[in-house]
Amino acid sequence: MIPIVSIVGRSGSGKTTLLEKVIRRLTERGYRVGTIKHDAHDFEIDYEGKDSWRHKQAGASTVVLASSKKIAVVKDAGREWSPESLAFTFASDHDIVITEGFKQSTIPKIEVFRKSHTAEPVCLDDSNLIALATEIAEEGQEKDTLKKELPRLDINDAEGVADFIAQRFLTPVPEKGVLLAVDGQAIALDPSSERLIKESLQGIIKSLNGCSEPGEIEVKIRQ
Amino acid sequence: MIPIVSIVGRSGSGKTTLLEKVIRRLTERGYRVGTIKHDAHDFEIDYEGKDSWRHKQAGASTVVLASSKKIAVVKDAGREWSPESLAFTFASDHDIVITEGFKQSTIPKIEVFRKSHTAEPVCLDDSNLIALATEIAEEGQEKDTLKKELPRLDINDAEGVADFIAQRFLTPVPEKGVLLAVDGQAIALDPSSERLIKESLQGIIKSLNGCSEPGEIEVKIRQ
Repeated sequence: MIPIVSIVGRSGSGKTTLLEKVIRRLTERGYRVGTIKHDAHDFEIDYEGKDSWRHKQAGASTVVLASSKKIAVVKDAGREWSPESLAFTFASDHDIVITEGFKQSTIPKIEVFRKSHTAEPVCLDDSNLIALATEIAEEGQEKDTLKKELPRLDINDAEGVADFIAQRFLTPVPEKGVLLAVDGQAIALDPSSERLIKESLQGIIKSLNGCSEPGEIEVKIRQ
Repeated sequence: MIPIVSIVGRSGSGKTTLLEKVIRRLTERGYRVGTIKHDAHDFEIDYEGKDSWRHKQAGASTVVLASSKKIAVVKDAGREWSPESLAFTFASDHDIVITEGFKQSTIPKIEVFRKSHTAEPVCLDDSNLIALATEIAEEGQEKDTLKKELPRLDINDAEGVADFIAQRFLTPVPEKGVLLAVDGQAIALDPSSERLIKESLQGIIKSLNGCSEPGEIEVKIRQ
């Protein structure tokens, strides 16, 4: 399963600025990074006048614009998608997905927290909070006031935050694997279920014409 | 497999205008329509200043912006994706995908052709050309000059073009089915292979915790 980590924090805490720097550090190290930003409001993408914008206005539920370099998609969501489902559908060919927001989800979180901005981290009671990115100079002072011990990362040291993410999420992750989603929700697989699904599908697919050595396999079944 | 049909024709022939009207007619009939537009050039999506745009600039290969209403994705393509792969990845939950362009692909094509604009349809020698959308008043004259007989649709009668597409692609298509892609390419399945894959996967997945009645199933395997 593709690793996902979320950068959370109050509005204005500096999430996007930190994320930009971390993306840059990780891509420089050769990792393929995807990002997902949750937007509580309805947003507009400026397609106006473009053919794909005209398709969407005419009623298409999904419009795709594709060149050999870039693919852009605008799709009616129909519901709130989980970050796991978004990562699975749109970025499964990546090494890591970093999300901004999704405070309510159970994915691991790093909170951007400035004592000068907020009294207490907003996700302090969330068991998925794995670290704080903070003004490290004030560390001693904060430690006394917070209810629990958490790794502190220096908000001004993007290299250090990238190290933390790489060590935690990128080293132990096998590149091979099976992703399974049922009715749009990612399903956690134990190793024996993963092997069972993988080997039975590979066995079937190798018997099809032109598929003797399948690399990546994707299957979707609709009832 | 989700049905795909492409609207082709020379630049300026009126493809997008016809497609807009056809999308409107099909969605009014309750069909869920996706569209894919091929762009030979590199295009720009105006994300500037948005957080997701900043993620992309920082080096993310895929950025997703998601609300409960809408999902927008900008992704590095890395290669030329086939319309089948694009439809499979981004619009498999639709009744039909209509593409604009993709002249070189083997998907069925309707060519927008105006005698006043071009001497001969550009896809006339393509065995996947299934109809011409043309200025029907000139039909008699054109018939004499074209090398082959093709159904003629009135370019000014979007309802008639929608009827043609619905009859050809939407009536006989079963809603249930199995989609398989190997290394990004959609693989055609005969009914027995389709049944084999579906029933073996359903059998395995029903045995997993919390998956006793799977509806839609998606699996991705990376080697």
